[in-house]
This record gives sequence, structure tokens and C-alpha cells, in this order.
Amino acid sequence: MRDIFDAELAQLGQDLAAMSGRVERAITDAGVALLTADVTLAESVIAADLEIDAIERDLDERCVLLLAQQQPVATDLRIVVSALRMSATLERMGDLARHIAQVARGRYPRHAVPQHLSGTFTEMHDAAVRVARRTTTLLGNHELPLAESIEQDDDLLDELHEDTFAALLNGTWNGSIQEAVDVTLLGRYYERFGDHGVSIARRVTYLVTGVLGQELDRSAS
Amino acid sequence: MRDIFDAELAQLGQDLAAMSGRVERAITDAGVALLTADVTLAESVIAADLEIDAIERDLDERCVLLLAQQQPVATDLRIVVSALRMSATLERMGDLARHIAQVARGRYPRHAVPQHLSGTFTEMHDAAVRVARRTTTLLGNHELPLAESIEQDDDLLDELHEDTFAALLNGTWNGSIQEAVDVTLLGRYYERFGDHGVSIARRVTYLVTGVLGQELDRSAS
Repeated sequence: MRDIFDAELAQLGQDLAAMSGRVERAITDAGVALLTADVTLAESVIAADLEIDAIERDLDERCVLLLAQQQPVATDLRIVVSALRMSATLERMGDLARHIAQVARGRYPRHAVPQHLSGTFTEMHDAAVRVARRTTTLLGNHELPLAESIEQDDDLLDELHEDTFAALLNGTWNGSIQEAVDVTLLGRYYERFGDHGVSIARRVTYLVTGVLGQELDRSAS
Repeated sequence: MRDIFDAELAQLGQDLAAMSGRVERAITDAGVALLTADVTLAESVIAADLEIDAIERDLDERCVLLLAQQQPVATDLRIVVSALRMSATLERMGDLARHIAQVARGRYPRHAVPQHLSGTFTEMHDAAVRVARRTTTLLGNHELPLAESIEQDDDLLDELHEDTFAALLNGTWNGSIQEAVDVTLLGRYYERFGDHGVSIARRVTYLVTGVLGQELDRSAS
């Protein structure tokens, strides 16, 4: 029984990492679609989000089955409950990538982001892609320095988000109202994406240091 | 054992309803603060959100304890897992009320919402307050017509959200960029608030008709 359960827990971790890989692809493609006004790529992100939603439902069903059949306690229980929460967070990250793609699609053939903010949004894109990539890796290997990097990129996303407000509100804005609305929403989507990455980073850290930490302490002493 | 567990499940439901009561208070006060530029009320919403966050953590801990100690299966398990998810959703609704209050505080002593949109935002406020009030009641009594009403108010919130975009983008906007940014974000906060209310309404409906439905079917046949 225990071997089977261990295999199921390991599979759960792999599936979360795979789901995160989908989110990584989604945020990468959404940003490229946004920055290059690529409507085909935007459409592909929007379509692929349905698959991410389906993965969440499947993962959740399996978590509930694991709880019912294996009746886990202590660390095992924390792992399954964390998986439930992390799949919901990844699903939300996929939604945010889709929202970015929808803005890109809605403005096509124009660029949604005005020229003078393309540098800021390129930086936001790069930071969000790093958050997603490191989330995928972290879910696979539990290397905690990755969690720290995710926090740093989230701080960077917050700063860049502030930069977009400054550009909108410092009195020199000469874009349209549509551009102001788009920049406001896009900035918020990227900022939230970072928050969700941090949420996962902290859950993994808690699992490794907080609960599993008891075992780590034992092996260290 | 069973009696104790039933009492614990009932308590969980009451605590979710009480948490929803806090959210109801938060969204009510946030909207009044927004529409009347009441900075003291806005501050109180922002401060009270910490309590909502604390209630979520407490509820989650108790759900995990229930899973560990009672090892529930079938309907009982679904109830506990749903409680975990609904507490996260209520926490998020509290965040959105706080965001609305933060906009109100940030613009004080001015009104964040331009005069010509105060009717639209009053309607959004009223719909969001109804969503919160019915969510509280639904969590307490599981009366499914309330779930239907929540869906209808969510549809109304979506329409009103569209109205704010129309006001921004129909070419007649003569407000400031700050007002455009605020209206964009406030509209999004209200729209998301409705989505979360629907999420809870559907979870309760699923618990009552989907899982418990097997028992209902039996008693009906």
C-alpha cells in the first residue's frame, strides 16, 4: 500500500509540474502575442486554456480520491491538500495568460501596448516567464533557491506595475483611453501572475522546510 | 464519534457563513466608502480584511485537522474539501472589497468615481451587496433558489462592467486618466466579486444536488 501511495504522491508532483509547464507555455505565448500583435498565437493561448482547466479538474478529482482511499495523515495529508490549492493557483495563472492573449486579440492588427511602454511590458513579460519557468522547475525538484528567485521576480513585477501607473498618471500620457484601459488591465494581470507564483513558491517552501523540515532536522542532528 | 464529527461539520458550515458575513460587511462598507468618499469607513474595511485573512487560516487548519482525525469519505469528504475551497474564495472576496476601499482612500477627499458613472457604480454596489448577503444566507441554509439569484446578479455585474467600458471607450470620455484607471480597476473588482460569489453558489449547489442528491433520490423514489 505504502509503495503505491508514494508512487501516487510522486505522480501528483509530476502532474503539477506538467500543469505548470502548460502555464509557462501560455504566459510565454501570450506575451509574445501581445508584444508582436500575433493574433494566431493569441488564439492558441485562448484555446489551450481549456486544457489547463481540464487538468485542474482531473488533478482535483485525484486528490479527493487519494484522500478517500489512502486516508493520509501528517506530511502526506499536507502534500495532498497543498496539491489541491496549487492546482487552483495554476489554473488562475492560466486564466491570466488567457486574459493577456484576449487583449492582444482584441486590438489586432494594432499593438495593444503603446510604443513608449513596450520596454516596460517586455520586462514584465520576461519576469513573468521566469516566474513560470521556475515554478515548473520548483514543483519538479523542490530546490528552494528557486522560490527565492520567484519572490524577487514578483518584486520586480510590482515595480514595473508601478512604472505603468507612473506612465499613465505623471501628466505626460498622450495615448488613447483604450490604451490607458489596456495598460491598466495588462499591468494588473502581470502583477497578479507574480503573486500566484509566490503563492506556489511559499507552499512548496512550507512543505519542504515546515513539515518535511522535521525530518531534515533529524537527519542534520 | 459520528455525533462529534457531525457537530464539527455543522460548525464548519456556520463558520463559513460567519466568514461570509464579514465579507458582506466589507463589500457594503467599501461601496459606501467609495460612493460617499468616506475615508474613515474605507480605513475600517482595510483594517478588517486582516481578520478575514485570519479566519481563512483558522478554517483551513481545522479542515486539515478534520481530514486527519476523522478520515472522512464520500459526502463528508466533499464537504470538507469544499469548505477549504470556499474559505479561499471568501478570502479573495474580502481582498476585492479591500481593493475598492483602497481606491476610495487613495482619492480622498475627492470621489474616485466620476459623477456621470455614480449611477452605474451604485448599481454595481447594490448587486455585489446582494451577492454577498445571499452567499451568507446560502451557506447557512442551502436554499438553492439563492444560488440562482447569485448567478443573476453576477450577470448584472457583467453587464454593468460592460457599461463602464462603453462609457470609457465610446469617444465621449472627458474625465482624467486617473479616473479612467480607477473606473477600469473598480469595474474589474466588482466583476470578479460576482464571479467568486457564483463559484460558491455552484459549490453549494453541487454539494446539495450532486453528492447529497444520491440520498435525495433515494428518499424520493
